[in-house]
Amino acid sequence: MSGFSSRTGFSRTWNALSQALAQRQAQGLPWIDLTVSNPARVGLSTLDPGLLATPGALTYEPDPLGLRSAREAVVAYLASRGAAIHAEHLLLSASTSEAYAWLFKLLCEPGDNVLVPAPSYPLFEHLARLEGVEVKPYRLPRAHGFGLDVGAVAAARDARSRAVLVVNPGNPTGHFLHEGELTALAGLCAETGLALLSDEVFSDFAWAPEPDRVPTVAGRPLPMLTFSLSGLSKVAGLPSLKLGWTHVGGPPERRDEALARLEWVADTFLSVGTPVQRALPAILAQHVPRFQTALLERVRENRRQLVSARPRGASWDVVPAHGGWSAVLRIPLAPGEEAMCLALLDAGVGVQPGYFYDFAGGAFLVLSLLPPPEVFRTALGTLTAVLAG
Amino acid sequence: MSGFSSRTGFSRTWNALSQALAQRQAQGLPWIDLTVSNPARVGLSTLDPGLLATPGALTYEPDPLGLRSAREAVVAYLASRGAAIHAEHLLLSASTSEAYAWLFKLLCEPGDNVLVPAPSYPLFEHLARLEGVEVKPYRLPRAHGFGLDVGAVAAARDARSRAVLVVNPGNPTGHFLHEGELTALAGLCAETGLALLSDEVFSDFAWAPEPDRVPTVAGRPLPMLTFSLSGLSKVAGLPSLKLGWTHVGGPPERRDEALARLEWVADTFLSVGTPVQRALPAILAQHVPRFQTALLERVRENRRQLVSARPRGASWDVVPAHGGWSAVLRIPLAPGEEAMCLALLDAGVGVQPGYFYDFAGGAFLVLSLLPPPEVFRTALGTLTAVLAG
Repeated sequence: MSGFSSRTGFSRTWNALSQALAQRQAQGLPWIDLTVSNPARVGLSTLDPGLLATPGALTYEPDPLGLRSAREAVVAYLASRGAAIHAEHLLLSASTSEAYAWLFKLLCEPGDNVLVPAPSYPLFEHLARLEGVEVKPYRLPRAHGFGLDVGAVAAARDARSRAVLVVNPGNPTGHFLHEGELTALAGLCAETGLALLSDEVFSDFAWAPEPDRVPTVAGRPLPMLTFSLSGLSKVAGLPSLKLGWTHVGGPPERRDEALARLEWVADTFLSVGTPVQRALPAILAQHVPRFQTALLERVRENRRQLVSARPRGASWDVVPAHGGWSAVLRIPLAPGEEAMCLALLDAGVGVQPGYFYDFAGGAFLVLSLLPPPEVFRTALGTLTAVLAG
Repeated sequence: MSGFSSRTGFSRTWNALSQALAQRQAQGLPWIDLTVSNPARVGLSTLDPGLLATPGALTYEPDPLGLRSAREAVVAYLASRGAAIHAEHLLLSASTSEAYAWLFKLLCEPGDNVLVPAPSYPLFEHLARLEGVEVKPYRLPRAHGFGLDVGAVAAARDARSRAVLVVNPGNPTGHFLHEGELTALAGLCAETGLALLSDEVFSDFAWAPEPDRVPTVAGRPLPMLTFSLSGLSKVAGLPSLKLGWTHVGGPPERRDEALARLEWVADTFLSVGTPVQRALPAILAQHVPRFQTALLERVRENRRQLVSARPRGASWDVVPAHGGWSAVLRIPLAPGEEAMCLALLDAGVGVQPGYFYDFAGGAFLVLSLLPPPEVFRTALGTLTAVLAG
């Protein structure tokens, strides 16, 4: 319709799957939701709301980077993950989505592009488009466990590429960035001027130790501008509280200029509420360890159930992974992802098709590992039966 | 510096005034802050933080437009201001700044422009620039009490103008939009396709009844797309809580398309915290009436003190106005705004120069009317003495 911008001209048609789900819900039919991504909806993240009612909760002392006390709490949190950083290099935002918007504004003129992984959660294209920025996907090769192949990044790059985005670990593919991959990527970035945007929202959720895993790029001496993003939505299972953080690193002169510009952008919005900033030290120190222990136990247990539910000789596989909240199944090409999702929904289990995440080179399903184990077990019974045809 | 976008290439040099203030603060010298804009800093907005700890404070049920219960609370609030609207036409955001960002994205391609009033608070240029959008100022004629002259809007418009922004009442000029001005503006918008962005954050703060005043454009049958913006920062004096709202009106088909696109944008960010949304009904129904009564009493009293402090025959005037939190003084052209601000600061009173707000056709000072009356009276003693010579 005339009078509106092309950047907001997204397609809003519903696909067959969302229509089928709406129909099922309208009929009041029960289903097990294996697409759930909010831990609070499955009993995993409970916080006393009284924590928000600190004495200074409403004392407004705006600092564009975020309250110093809140940034110091993030410093302590990252230190416990092995990263030595300074509060002056941290920037708070209401979410990682907002941080991406600010970073795209910082790095890109309209028409520039950023390199994004595929498959991955389909948010970056929308965020970029709203800033007048394009995305160019680079493929995560399945043969490499959906890990990063720097050659694929280099091949996707063009003269208007400004940054490469890495999701560590991949969502939903669960592959962590490894030291060798980071070294190769740093070489490409140094050579071509690309900045690195590292999405580390799932980084705390490794299922087992891995010697070469990079938990965060924050605090690493890297030759390119680096931005490490995370926040309470995943780290603490608290999407209702709206607080994310970005660590800025890289060569000091460029880092400081990036910080000065980002501070300016943040000052224009001042978007983080004071109560959550005041509560952040307690949330990170007290709530997060409890929450993450419970979540990891849940996810590992469901993963074990899934792997052992696969019948010997089945025509589908559980794709190997090392962390995160999801599992990926490779399924036969016929009848296809959507037909399989519809059949599963018809049998009372909702899962996501691979195309939602831009998988290629096969047919895939994506399952949340968050539901209570007994619910997950019931769903697995249906899943194995439907997949067996 | 190369590698960063032009839209974030703002000048970050300090002017003489901010340098002088920093120096004064470094020396530990006292000063009376007549630039204060946060009511909580002058004892005017106190809220029990316990209000944030409602039972559902952390229950995350994301609705891109904002929780229904929160939007219904805004409907009730606007109804008490005479506007009959529906919750489906409301959109919550973390702030009016964020709402502007979304509206600029919605209405403008990079390179398009919006028409903004001058003088006014200097935020729109920055917000627009970050979206790749330009601003074209239209002058509020001083001879018309800094009210809106539709001819000035029409003269500023060009082929790439997408919207006209009205601040009602003007900040810091305190002139409300009048019925006749709105009629003329609606005519121009209908003829040229401009949307109307109406900033109503100070609309509740009228100092006295005015028959022709437009309190809000929300709920008015207007021929153009209209967006009415406000939020808790000013309405409730709670900038720490991060909640604003936008009412979308105008011809139904265009309004609904605008809402669908804005819902899509909002879904990409989901930027409003749940605790403040759950607390909104209580804040609007209980806190706001108390806060606004106290603030209006304070502002009226300080305004009375200011008017009566002016010596007969003085070379300066209090510019007539009808609402808001500020006063504007016209001062002699010599020695100029900045020299006068520096002299006042030297004498222990901080005020803002007119150029900060893009005043033209004279020299002006801007004073906050928020300080406690006894503090304000002390500052007035200094002010009259310095202005006298």
